[in-house]
Amino acid sequence: MNATIISIGDELLIGQTINTNASMIARKIAKAGVSVNSILTIGDTGNAIREAVAAAQANSDIAIVTGGLGPTHDDLTKDVLVKHFGGKLVLYPEILKALEARFEQRGYRMPENNRGQAMLPDNAKVLPNKVGTAQGMLFQSGKFLCFVLPGVPYEASFIMDDSIVPMLSSMIKDVVLLHQSWRTVGVPESVLAEKIGDIAAIEEHGKLAFLPKYSGVDLRISVRAANRAEAETRIRKSEKIIRAKVGHHIYGSGDESLAGTVGAILRERSATLAVAESCTGGLLCARLTSEPGSSDFFVGGMVTYSNAEKIRQLGVREDTLKKHGAVSEEVALEMSVGARHRLQVDFAISTTGIAGPGGGSAEKPVGTVWIGFASAEKSYAKKYTISSLREVNQERSVNYALAILLRELAGRS
Amino acid sequence: MNATIISIGDELLIGQTINTNASMIARKIAKAGVSVNSILTIGDTGNAIREAVAAAQANSDIAIVTGGLGPTHDDLTKDVLVKHFGGKLVLYPEILKALEARFEQRGYRMPENNRGQAMLPDNAKVLPNKVGTAQGMLFQSGKFLCFVLPGVPYEASFIMDDSIVPMLSSMIKDVVLLHQSWRTVGVPESVLAEKIGDIAAIEEHGKLAFLPKYSGVDLRISVRAANRAEAETRIRKSEKIIRAKVGHHIYGSGDESLAGTVGAILRERSATLAVAESCTGGLLCARLTSEPGSSDFFVGGMVTYSNAEKIRQLGVREDTLKKHGAVSEEVALEMSVGARHRLQVDFAISTTGIAGPGGGSAEKPVGTVWIGFASAEKSYAKKYTISSLREVNQERSVNYALAILLRELAGRS
Repeated sequence: MNATIISIGDELLIGQTINTNASMIARKIAKAGVSVNSILTIGDTGNAIREAVAAAQANSDIAIVTGGLGPTHDDLTKDVLVKHFGGKLVLYPEILKALEARFEQRGYRMPENNRGQAMLPDNAKVLPNKVGTAQGMLFQSGKFLCFVLPGVPYEASFIMDDSIVPMLSSMIKDVVLLHQSWRTVGVPESVLAEKIGDIAAIEEHGKLAFLPKYSGVDLRISVRAANRAEAETRIRKSEKIIRAKVGHHIYGSGDESLAGTVGAILRERSATLAVAESCTGGLLCARLTSEPGSSDFFVGGMVTYSNAEKIRQLGVREDTLKKHGAVSEEVALEMSVGARHRLQVDFAISTTGIAGPGGGSAEKPVGTVWIGFASAEKSYAKKYTISSLREVNQERSVNYALAILLRELAGRS
Repeated sequence: MNATIISIGDELLIGQTINTNASMIARKIAKAGVSVNSILTIGDTGNAIREAVAAAQANSDIAIVTGGLGPTHDDLTKDVLVKHFGGKLVLYPEILKALEARFEQRGYRMPENNRGQAMLPDNAKVLPNKVGTAQGMLFQSGKFLCFVLPGVPYEASFIMDDSIVPMLSSMIKDVVLLHQSWRTVGVPESVLAEKIGDIAAIEEHGKLAFLPKYSGVDLRISVRAANRAEAETRIRKSEKIIRAKVGHHIYGSGDESLAGTVGAILRERSATLAVAESCTGGLLCARLTSEPGSSDFFVGGMVTYSNAEKIRQLGVREDTLKKHGAVSEEVALEMSVGARHRLQVDFAISTTGIAGPGGGSAEKPVGTVWIGFASAEKSYAKKYTISSLREVNQERSVNYALAILLRELAGRS
């Protein structure tokens, strides 16, 4: 079974809103075993909506449409589709009652334009929206199914989980397509590909893909099989081959993060961590503490932008700063060692660099970053030359720092 | 001039990656005066790529294609398009030299795979990629322009700014559609709409839209006009009406961030800031230091997760922690006052709360957050009750803290 996803909204076409609904829907239906042919984003016009649905009807088993179900004048989707599928809008009294109750509960009288949201097609099944006012709909034409959802992300997500995924799962007896991915860090895409070498043995089981990201390169295998058990067996077989070749670069699978993996190892070992940041400005702390339970290992962090704060908070020597500059091996080292001693933790990590766009020189260009590490056994600092872009320098520095922690904690990568 | 954006990648169709490139491109070309007809996302297959480009050629003046330019076996875009437009790949020696130098600088020998990235079409203009290994390309067929970019977001963004936007801007003499948006914080959408009231006077000049986001509500006006000057006049006229009604809620325009606005005011006033974070775990520091030039005002931050660190780094009294708990008005206040004194800055801001999912109680449920402020004139802490979701609690807390700084610094919102 395959699908077209249709996203409706002018705000998507001018880039004011990122289309997170399409990836949310794609992820949920992929897990149910439906493959997506294409995702089409169009504006709020009747013609575009009609043409998109007609094209999906010609090319796909199902369409999932989001957006344009609100109560205002520029919400056209329902009117266009009810006509397209040859029906008309009728009042659903129980929906009207529920809408009125919803407003009453919040202490408002229901505005007149919400009344229209109880007018629903006589030729569609209503997919109840328990977290908002715009109901989902399912039109059917021959074998073609057209699901329609509101554009508000958590409402669309609710109806997906509550109605659509269970419906699709019950219709699909034999799962045809499963995906599994593994995450690597510290190796360029082409080096990883070289180490994997001939992919024939892997592709006997499924299709292999490389996905370069800020955080490293993800490997993904997509397996087509007659049923779920067979697909899972094939995934395990391909994983065995992949791990034999590049297993020491793999830190996690699925959407596990590098910070999450580092945190999990620290918790498992009841070890503690402190962070001293300069060029990354708090981003390394933020990444580590975005994971639930991080207070078990994360004791504290210091964002020391000024030299004075490097001295005061971390005990970096004024002499070292004068002699070598703030962006240097010596200062990175004193930052990590200082953080470790002051916060009395097992491990400390530090960053100091020139994030840019200003502050670079011939000797130390923008993108020069030193990362320091300190444990009871050893301390060192490592140099990286990254890019000319501030955001990239900050993101990459955080990932390099996490990769150092992973290597020191688990000997991986 | 109108465009089709084509995003290529199986990872987009299974929802593994959110399509941020399409919105980045849409935003940049909208500013240059190009309107987007549709955004089409397809998988890594030659047929899908050929069909998508052919359809764009039939319906649009230009296409902007991203993805599938990497060095591995699943990268098909270049091969498919060079044939589609009737050319062949040839070696670009100067690109090969630059690629080799790039790897050498990072301490790798260039893998054989990457050699292929110096093979480029003899029928396309190369759009240089100075931040990665896959070059951009421009194919032309009659009046139709087909721009091709790598899928790595910052590489695509670099080539957009460096080559494509300047090229399009110079080609478009008469702009037909311009958008301008303004950003508000601290007011619900419906209250904002009520304060604006009758939109007829605004819509004489263009179409008004409300866009609620985590960070606040954006207002957007879309203006169609015969030329850029006329469009800009209309935008100014509608802005005047909007500002007269809700100007004190507006902190910036376009994609200016709240952190950027706060930073700009601090720099303008030569004032300094310190940050003391608990529940936001470094995210507030990271948001403030993501802006270039933040070292002018940002002196330092302390991420004090443990009580011991709140005492050691910020001078919070043990007695206060015992009596009121870490998540309390008193501790938020002592954190901000402590940070201000210790770092000797003009302003300090603090966060302490229960981000979740663990740590909540009946009295202090997950989502309870206190934000402290301290200046020479005053200090106070304010309570917020946010949500049950860790990510939302951290994001919203950062926005509330920035909104407090904005109000104290500029009297806005």
